[in-house]
Amino acid sequence: MPVHLDPPKPEALLSISGVRLGIAKAGIRKPNRKDLLIVEVAEGGRLAGVFTQNRYCAAPVIVCREHLATKSEIRALVINTGVANAGTGETGLANARASCGAVAEALGLKADQVLPFSTGVIMEPLPVDRLIAGIPACVADLKPDNWAAAAEAIMTTDIVAKAVSRQVVIDGFTITVTGIAKGAGMIQPNMATMLGFIATDATVGGEALAHLTRYVAERSFNVITVDGDTSTNDSLVIAATGHAGNPRIIGEGTAEFARLCEAVLEVAQILAQAIVRDGEGATKFITIAVDGGATRAECLAVGKRIAHSPLVKTAFFASDPNLGRILAAVGNAGIADLDPTKVTLHLGEFLVAERGGRAASYTEEQGKAAMKPAEITIRVGLGRGDESATVWTCDFSYDYVKINADYRS
Amino acid sequence: MPVHLDPPKPEALLSISGVRLGIAKAGIRKPNRKDLLIVEVAEGGRLAGVFTQNRYCAAPVIVCREHLATKSEIRALVINTGVANAGTGETGLANARASCGAVAEALGLKADQVLPFSTGVIMEPLPVDRLIAGIPACVADLKPDNWAAAAEAIMTTDIVAKAVSRQVVIDGFTITVTGIAKGAGMIQPNMATMLGFIATDATVGGEALAHLTRYVAERSFNVITVDGDTSTNDSLVIAATGHAGNPRIIGEGTAEFARLCEAVLEVAQILAQAIVRDGEGATKFITIAVDGGATRAECLAVGKRIAHSPLVKTAFFASDPNLGRILAAVGNAGIADLDPTKVTLHLGEFLVAERGGRAASYTEEQGKAAMKPAEITIRVGLGRGDESATVWTCDFSYDYVKINADYRS
Repeated sequence: MPVHLDPPKPEALLSISGVRLGIAKAGIRKPNRKDLLIVEVAEGGRLAGVFTQNRYCAAPVIVCREHLATKSEIRALVINTGVANAGTGETGLANARASCGAVAEALGLKADQVLPFSTGVIMEPLPVDRLIAGIPACVADLKPDNWAAAAEAIMTTDIVAKAVSRQVVIDGFTITVTGIAKGAGMIQPNMATMLGFIATDATVGGEALAHLTRYVAERSFNVITVDGDTSTNDSLVIAATGHAGNPRIIGEGTAEFARLCEAVLEVAQILAQAIVRDGEGATKFITIAVDGGATRAECLAVGKRIAHSPLVKTAFFASDPNLGRILAAVGNAGIADLDPTKVTLHLGEFLVAERGGRAASYTEEQGKAAMKPAEITIRVGLGRGDESATVWTCDFSYDYVKINADYRS
Repeated sequence: MPVHLDPPKPEALLSISGVRLGIAKAGIRKPNRKDLLIVEVAEGGRLAGVFTQNRYCAAPVIVCREHLATKSEIRALVINTGVANAGTGETGLANARASCGAVAEALGLKADQVLPFSTGVIMEPLPVDRLIAGIPACVADLKPDNWAAAAEAIMTTDIVAKAVSRQVVIDGFTITVTGIAKGAGMIQPNMATMLGFIATDATVGGEALAHLTRYVAERSFNVITVDGDTSTNDSLVIAATGHAGNPRIIGEGTAEFARLCEAVLEVAQILAQAIVRDGEGATKFITIAVDGGATRAECLAVGKRIAHSPLVKTAFFASDPNLGRILAAVGNAGIADLDPTKVTLHLGEFLVAERGGRAASYTEEQGKAAMKPAEITIRVGLGRGDESATVWTCDFSYDYVKINADYRS
């Protein structure tokens, strides 16, 4: 079961003026489940996205990049679950384009004003006829207060829907930010996870929004991992409708930009952490904080290496303080000139390792006590500089194997 | 249970003239099991080793490197299981050195003529007094035909002991090669696995032997992976006693060198594959052959990425041809300019993917049939050049989680 994660309360999700959402049961892969979502953004809004670095990226990701490059105003997203439309060659591209064309026609737009997204099984053909047949029901359902249903519509092996809202006051204007995401497996996003969608009514310039999107992705979706597998479909899109009426935020160095960044980052981190809490088979939520690095990149490398080690993850599942496995992972992180005698390891509040070995003060009882809770923080000090990074992950349980051995059946 | 792997038949293991092995039950971590091994190499033998690249390398690995650097003639190895003596700081180094000193004293050698090896739990202190107390029993047991017992003495979570012999005729002289290894978990050797020990009676020069050791490691232990975790203790040592009487093999380009290389590589590959067949929880043995690469390094990167993907490994456990997961792993292997439309994927004899998508000829029935056997070959063509590499791995089952959640208890 997800670690300390309740379904979002629909009444806690705030509408974003200028954004409407419509859901349908299109029967993409299985009958009678919400599996198609259209998000409509009002004229004048701005949108930025980051996408998977997987070279086998999905057809919809390729089409998203094409449509964003045309500089047309993006006015709608179409998202299906069930089939990822990845590893589907030319037919897959044609299907993704056809989906955009059909949504554009239904909403009175051009095809390149629509971005397509898919999630589900890889290498299966997208049943584009069923998708297109579902569009009228989505359009009929379009409304601003549909965020909870939208979060449900993008779930695959997720157990709990993920959605959150925050507000911040900038220049006297109340700015609202609402986001949804899905995750569960094939989760080591590298640019962002499939699918994160965040909207705000802030008025913000195009370049500032693009910068904000990259900044937020690097510190939220890009620092979580469930299984170290980067999906073919990862996409994070942030839309700003400008309906809040605040003066346009354009400079990256301004106080207004910083405040908006903070609010969007909080939403993104809650969503990203929710994906880990609902990671396939997760029983623990683990925060890995690495500091004392010469670069942020090497701190991230250490954090990810620990987070990807099946030996570390199974030890957490067992609540077994087999902490040498963490040291071994630190040693494997690719820092050629790492000096193990300068490395420190804390488990919760307890100092576990220093000077290349076990700390004199450490006891097995401390380790057992620290491993018990469902939320655990590991701190690694590298003793090389002032940089730091934080990675969030979950443990590795029987249920991860069960879920992934069963996924297609 | 191990995949198609039977315990070695003691009578099939050939003695190497100039090598004697002695075993004891020293009670290192648990009572009443073979856990201490001394290998003695006669005067005039040569020895080369490769060791883990993990920066948190174990104390015995540090001492091995020191002793090999002194250029003293190495005459003995001392190997304990139960405790890895890694992450043990200055005390660990002192304990490793004390072990060498005690073995040297018992055999009339200097301490730097002894190499120490340990395998087991990380960050626990080595009970050096019990180790030293076990040395006389090992020495009393020294004999040439003790390879089967030696293979048993180095097991940890291994189910089956690993040992093999081969003979080759060079310049009219019969050369014998015998090796032992252990593995099971924390297996992605990077230089070699803890512990591989291979001996031959060939007469071979020091530089040629060092070259041979690196060549063999790169194509055997360094291309296997169970869980992607590189151990702190990986070590491969090859000893050549020179007792076969053949003319000394010195040139790397000679036909004699090539023949010896082939025989030692065969032994090393059988041992390395045996480690995978006996990987923790393994139910399948998977060969990943990557060709068409621009470099051998990128072929290895693709092979390792597939072999490390928990999603791929759990699909194999389930015999589920969820082959999009393999394409996703290929896309994640870090080849920035990979063109997915040129990639081909074969599962067994069946072409699965080409031109960026599923092959027209592929059927789900083919996939199901190909996933059924306990031994499966995947072939990936990158369409970029003439280089190739092969990686061996196993699947990921409930038992991997069970074994590693229980390991210390």
